[in-house]
Amino acid sequence: RIMRPDDANVAGNVHGGTILKMIEEAGAIISTRHCNSQAGEPCVAALARVERTDFLSPVCIGEVANVSAEITYTSRHSVEVQVNVMSENILTGAKKVTNKATLWYVPLSLKNVNKVLEVPPIQYARKEQEDEGRKRYEEQKLDRLETKQRNGDVILPVINPEPHTVGYSQSSLIHLVGPSDCTLLGFVHGGVTMKLMDEVAGIVAARHCKTNIVTASVDAINFHEKIKKGCVITISGRMTFTSNKSMEIEVFVDADPFVDEPRERYRAVSAFFTYVSLSKEGKPLPVPQLLTETEDEKRRFEEGKGRYLQTKAKRQAQMQQAAQ
Amino acid sequence: RIMRPDDANVAGNVHGGTILKMIEEAGAIISTRHCNSQAGEPCVAALARVERTDFLSPVCIGEVANVSAEITYTSRHSVEVQVNVMSENILTGAKKVTNKATLWYVPLSLKNVNKVLEVPPIQYARKEQEDEGRKRYEEQKLDRLETKQRNGDVILPVINPEPHTVGYSQSSLIHLVGPSDCTLLGFVHGGVTMKLMDEVAGIVAARHCKTNIVTASVDAINFHEKIKKGCVITISGRMTFTSNKSMEIEVFVDADPFVDEPRERYRAVSAFFTYVSLSKEGKPLPVPQLLTETEDEKRRFEEGKGRYLQTKAKRQAQMQQAAQ
Amino acid sequence: RIMRPDDANVAGNVHGGTILKMIEEAGAIISTRHCNSQAGEPCVAALARVERTDFLSPVCIGEVANVSAEITYTSRHSVEVQVNVMSENILTGAKKVTNKATLWYVPLSLKNVNKVLEVPPIQYARKEQEDEGRKRYEEQKLDRLETKQRNGDVILPVINPEPHTVGYSQSSLIHLVGPSDCTLLGFVHGGVTMKLMDEVAGIVAARHCKTNIVTASVDAINFHEKIKKGCVITISGRMTFTSNKSMEIEVFVDADPFVDEPRERYRAVSAFFTYVSLSKEGKPLPVPQLLTETEDEKRRFEEGKGRYLQTKAKRQAQMQQAAQ
Repeated sequence: RIMRPDDANVAGNVHGGTILKMIEEAGAIISTRHCNSQAGEPCVAALARVERTDFLSPVCIGEVANVSAEITYTSRHSVEVQVNVMSENILTGAKKVTNKATLWYVPLSLKNVNKVLEVPPIQYARKEQEDEGRKRYEEQKLDRLETKQRNGDVILPVINPEPHTVGYSQSSLIHLVGPSDCTLLGFVHGGVTMKLMDEVAGIVAARHCKTNIVTASVDAINFHEKIKKGCVITISGRMTFTSNKSMEIEVFVDADPFVDEPRERYRAVSAFFTYVSLSKEGKPLPVPQLLTETEDEKRRFEEGKGRYLQTKAKRQAQMQQAAQ
Repeated sequence: RIMRPDDANVAGNVHGGTILKMIEEAGAIISTRHCNSQAGEPCVAALARVERTDFLSPVCIGEVANVSAEITYTSRHSVEVQVNVMSENILTGAKKVTNKATLWYVPLSLKNVNKVLEVPPIQYARKEQEDEGRKRYEEQKLDRLETKQRNGDVILPVINPEPHTVGYSQSSLIHLVGPSDCTLLGFVHGGVTMKLMDEVAGIVAARHCKTNIVTASVDAINFHEKIKKGCVITISGRMTFTSNKSMEIEVFVDADPFVDEPRERYRAVSAFFTYVSLSKEGKPLPVPQLLTETEDEKRRFEEGKGRYLQTKAKRQAQMQQAAQ
Repeated sequence: RIMRPDDANVAGNVHGGTILKMIEEAGAIISTRHCNSQAGEPCVAALARVERTDFLSPVCIGEVANVSAEITYTSRHSVEVQVNVMSENILTGAKKVTNKATLWYVPLSLKNVNKVLEVPPIQYARKEQEDEGRKRYEEQKLDRLETKQRNGDVILPVINPEPHTVGYSQSSLIHLVGPSDCTLLGFVHGGVTMKLMDEVAGIVAARHCKTNIVTASVDAINFHEKIKKGCVITISGRMTFTSNKSMEIEVFVDADPFVDEPRERYRAVSAFFTYVSLSKEGKPLPVPQLLTETEDEKRRFEEGKGRYLQTKAKRQAQMQQAAQ
């Protein structure tokens, strides 16, 4: 669809969150369709995980985003979908790859939302495709289990923070979950959650560097807990790490089923977003360094540095491979 | 209401689809109100058909669109509504007629969505009004029947198309039908469908001529099949004909009730949109000629030419009449 | 227009904020049109103040809201607009007055946004109308001046609050101001701000009583400071007072022009909203009493009680007058 003024920031760059939402909608459609392709209990595919994705080039207002999706692996209870986004300037005809994302869905029964159904298997052109898919499946399963543990963390408010400290840019947003945010099952679309997360992360980044910023990448996101219509969700973000030209922001989503259900507030999702600051000409700008104060902040900074260096090393390895 | 940036293209002209959506909302309100004006089964008016409408002058961001609607004819089971749209520049006070549309609605029972109810008759000031209305009613009925036949056509993807061929500009968009798209009966508002159709047609036109384009007219649209909440709809468009200064685009809407219903994808609506290309000063520009390759494309081009010449002849006849 | 699922809470009642936004759009159109009705510098009417308004009956999904606006007084530099909202059930034909609001607008030059232009005078049917208008004008002017003083207050975060304390339900929301939120001058529509304020106030109320809640009234709101496109606004709300069956919530709007402008965060608007809690049958429910802890909270509770008793006395006086 055509990118509109409301999809973009003041510099005309489309928010990463808008792209993530489109990707997730395409993934949800193709996997729901696949899971209902054999006679059986009707179901809706729910987002379980999004793999790390890089935003390769910014999209502008007036451009058309083309989203294509393909099922690349099925396990007994989950579907892997590969989604590609191309941006097209329909006036010049220029096309660019915006990003490629991999998403995992799980089919939930329409009659009993807590029942996970079986996924019809797909046919692979070659045996290796199936083996590689199984490997990706095992890897993401491990990673999901791991993130399930570390969830207790909370963003505490800070009074009168100094510029460039963590407390200075941290931000949070509340949102009442309405009907348009939800699937047929009455749970929030994963894409809606990701769009709100990107919104908060973007505000944290902009508060820190006070320039025009864009989403550069999103780390893998695991959706452990569903969020129901009528909940209030609190999305909070804090900066964890800065390199010379990038900022890492951790984002938490907490759900509060405050009407009609005697349940405590719970952590539904968390993720790391990376942002860069752009000049008016679209060149990356240096970023003010994050001032860490507490022990926790220093630890998180080091962890962020680890993730940053690891990603950098991976990318260099890929580039060398590609060059050979 | 005031036209916002998101209602418009990059040149600030409001999309024809936004206007069509407002027109349909006004029509749905007045006809639902009328059909419930006598004690009886409560019902909701569903859009059955929109007559051909010309966009007489473009509307800009910041202008106010005034929509007025009037019931002009009632048959036993249908209501004809005339809707006029005036755009008003509230800074200068200038008012212009944007377009006049004629819509046909059918009252469906709230209790049983497949039951068409009877329409309370209206009073006519003069006998001729009733006769003319009946004539319009008979004409549209014939036309509806006719379009019901030709529905098999599908837009196939083309790999590496040449510029200005049909395959080069053809486009499609998918949309998951959410609660805000729907009436009380849980079916998509006709206006929502028309807005999406205009969006796709606009992308086809812009891809073809790579300039700023606006909707000039929409041929009669028949709504044969309802679309339910939760469906995925695919809206596809292809260029069928070009004159020196206009482009005709055919748009299909296919619905895919992929959850909960063992029904095949079906054609819900189809229509022809005409676009013109405008210079920065708002003057019509010459349009690159469409290159037809297959026999079907040549046939459709000739059919489009037929529609074009017929419309031109009709308009000249009207102008002569008006001049007398 | 027809009320959609997205305009309403889970119980199907349309948010007061949606109604306030429609009211303000109508007021902005009629007053901008009036201020440009004489040749002169083109201008846009900016909202300066909304008088206290009561929501007399809830509006439901599927109903049509009819908004009508009339200019009732003009001073040299301001316009008073009276807006009435009727809800209409188009199935039954039943109409109810939803609310009546009085708004004050000031014309700002399109060329120089800091320049307030002169308002063309209106004609009064009777001399008394002009005198009564002048009296209302003087009263609101005084009130505006008064509220300009008390602006320093800030909602401080509370860690691990007890249920029913002020800190327990206080909430805040951030919003990045996009193009569709703004007038032609590039400033946020007053109606957009009021809708966000109602959203936060509603979440505070729901967190406090954990039932379905609706807006009962909004105290006068003064718009002292414009908010520019691209700002981040923080809307925060805290409960100040509870009677047996109502809750008063104070809401602050702070703007943060963090990109491109060397200006500090500032208080743009503040207001008091009153909410009631409704049972499933639409009857008012008792509300848990607010637990005040600090001296400031106790003081604000007493002030809220003062406003509550004053409003109650006024309403009784009006009812006695009406009964005579």
